[in-house]
Amino acid sequence: MERVYLDWNATTPLRVEARLAMIAAMDVVGNPSSVHAEGRGAKAVLERARGQVAQALGAQGADIVFVGSATEGAALACAGRGLHCSDVEHDAVSAWCVADLGVDALGAVAVPEPGCAAVQLANSETGVMQELAQGVAVADLTQAFGKVAFSFNWLECDAGLVSAHKLGGPKGIGAVALRPGVDLAVQIKGGGQEMGRRAGTENIIGIAGFGAAAEAAARDLANGIWEEVAQLRNILEKALSAQTNDTIFVGKGAARLPNTLCLIAPGWKGETQVMQMDLAGFAVSAGSACSSGKVRASRVLRAMGFEEELAAQAVRISIGPGVTEDQVLRFADIWAKQYNKHRARHA
Amino acid sequence: MERVYLDWNATTPLRVEARLAMIAAMDVVGNPSSVHAEGRGAKAVLERARGQVAQALGAQGADIVFVGSATEGAALACAGRGLHCSDVEHDAVSAWCVADLGVDALGAVAVPEPGCAAVQLANSETGVMQELAQGVAVADLTQAFGKVAFSFNWLECDAGLVSAHKLGGPKGIGAVALRPGVDLAVQIKGGGQEMGRRAGTENIIGIAGFGAAAEAAARDLANGIWEEVAQLRNILEKALSAQTNDTIFVGKGAARLPNTLCLIAPGWKGETQVMQMDLAGFAVSAGSACSSGKVRASRVLRAMGFEEELAAQAVRISIGPGVTEDQVLRFADIWAKQYNKHRARHA
Repeated sequence: MERVYLDWNATTPLRVEARLAMIAAMDVVGNPSSVHAEGRGAKAVLERARGQVAQALGAQGADIVFVGSATEGAALACAGRGLHCSDVEHDAVSAWCVADLGVDALGAVAVPEPGCAAVQLANSETGVMQELAQGVAVADLTQAFGKVAFSFNWLECDAGLVSAHKLGGPKGIGAVALRPGVDLAVQIKGGGQEMGRRAGTENIIGIAGFGAAAEAAARDLANGIWEEVAQLRNILEKALSAQTNDTIFVGKGAARLPNTLCLIAPGWKGETQVMQMDLAGFAVSAGSACSSGKVRASRVLRAMGFEEELAAQAVRISIGPGVTEDQVLRFADIWAKQYNKHRARHA
Repeated sequence: MERVYLDWNATTPLRVEARLAMIAAMDVVGNPSSVHAEGRGAKAVLERARGQVAQALGAQGADIVFVGSATEGAALACAGRGLHCSDVEHDAVSAWCVADLGVDALGAVAVPEPGCAAVQLANSETGVMQELAQGVAVADLTQAFGKVAFSFNWLECDAGLVSAHKLGGPKGIGAVALRPGVDLAVQIKGGGQEMGRRAGTENIIGIAGFGAAAEAAARDLANGIWEEVAQLRNILEKALSAQTNDTIFVGKGAARLPNTLCLIAPGWKGETQVMQMDLAGFAVSAGSACSSGKVRASRVLRAMGFEEELAAQAVRISIGPGVTEDQVLRFADIWAKQYNKHRARHA
């Protein structure tokens, strides 16, 4: 059976550009902290990728600190700062913040004091985008980077979080972009790497892949690839709407990521949807991948005002370049048929 | 000019087994936290590598927690525990400990209370090995893993630190082995990965490389490859001893890693040696790579009782499988000639 991967917000397939850059970096022998030729060669790979990420982020002149994940980046950027956030933030951010900012029914976060707030640009579960106030303390750009146009420097935030594997790079490498002059408490000590901000020998192969993926993602974005993806998402939404009665399209009416569709199917548990679709050949998700295993009502949907029961009946479809119209229409058919069957059984 | 890489303690070339495992893992699409088939496929790669690392470490039944580096592992294993260590420990460990344990002239650490101590099995600068008391709180196994035989379970320590790139795996991935029942304060929060001990999407490609490298390293070790390396190191030591007068062989007389030779050339600065050897085609190191950039007297050698000046006149040669007798003899010739020339000039 053909598998159709519709879970791009959880992680993306590795881009060919990243693959080639990583394979090339496998031949780099040195430790970038070493002063000899082999060390300088490794350092050059590192710094090239740093430039590629900065360029793709619109963060020229900012410090790019490579970390092991956006989650580690969130710890570096948020820990010990007493920041405020809302319940739509990722656990990796809210773990370090007071989650007392309000969220409206369309997912918009109220940010009275940007300088004390951690705010995402786009939500991974719903795709809902924030109109980011300038100057937030921490901007979680993880899910938006590569899918929508923005510039880190224009945001004037202290710190921005990004991750390679959301835009076609490898898992296990992220970065924190820092506005020049911003300093943070070091979390991982014991070495001068990353301008003294994150000790430990650098993940050269992963970083090379991140740089290449970021560059390719920026090029694809400029070429309008995500507008095609948005059309596909809209086709999928329309097909689902036509074939079912009471499906709720979460965040419809808000600005959303071009690739994301969050549905609530009243009466049909999200985890059951994911399993049934998996058996039918489709990879989709209920809630964020990071917290799965524990299946529970989405905190994000609860924050938007959905009741516990409905918030546990959501599924996220997130697509990417290369997914075809035929594939999304097939998904719509099968999902709608199963939902209608489920409703008939439980009517 | 042929380059000869003699800095294996800083980092090693990537093993072919690791390379192939990493390239295979590039085709893994899912996020290991996802429940669908793609997610389960990624999870399988992760768990296979976890088993390979446990097996190679002699840590069957222990928890293997993958982290971004041994440095991150040290933070996870040491932070907030009030442990004691000596000045021969790596900065990544001593950053979290009180460095008040004594060190003798051969580099042996006095460990009155193992349960409150962080102790390395082998020193990266000198190669000196500790007779590890059973039951130390944290055993830094980073430099020893893959080069000498030991079993994590026999050490009965709480936690052991290892890193992939010291045994032919990729940079940017390490692990903490935990004795069953040991719990540590989580440093990177916001997701349930790694048994709740280290949040963040896992570095699947790097982890696959680590697993394959650990398995291959254990096989090579069992096959006696490091005994051949030790013979080569001894040939090098003899040649240097024959061609120079007052070279100090640090740690000679102590048990040492098979591949490491730490020399002090009185009157010739370590950083100058590194640069002159680099120009002559050889990659060697003064002190640990992680703290280079800042050139200063080695804290490790100071702890062994060497005066500041001598401690700044050290160079480390660390070799590995594949280095030839011809290469080490050529190194010995050139190093000895330059040292003798240097002494004549400054006599």
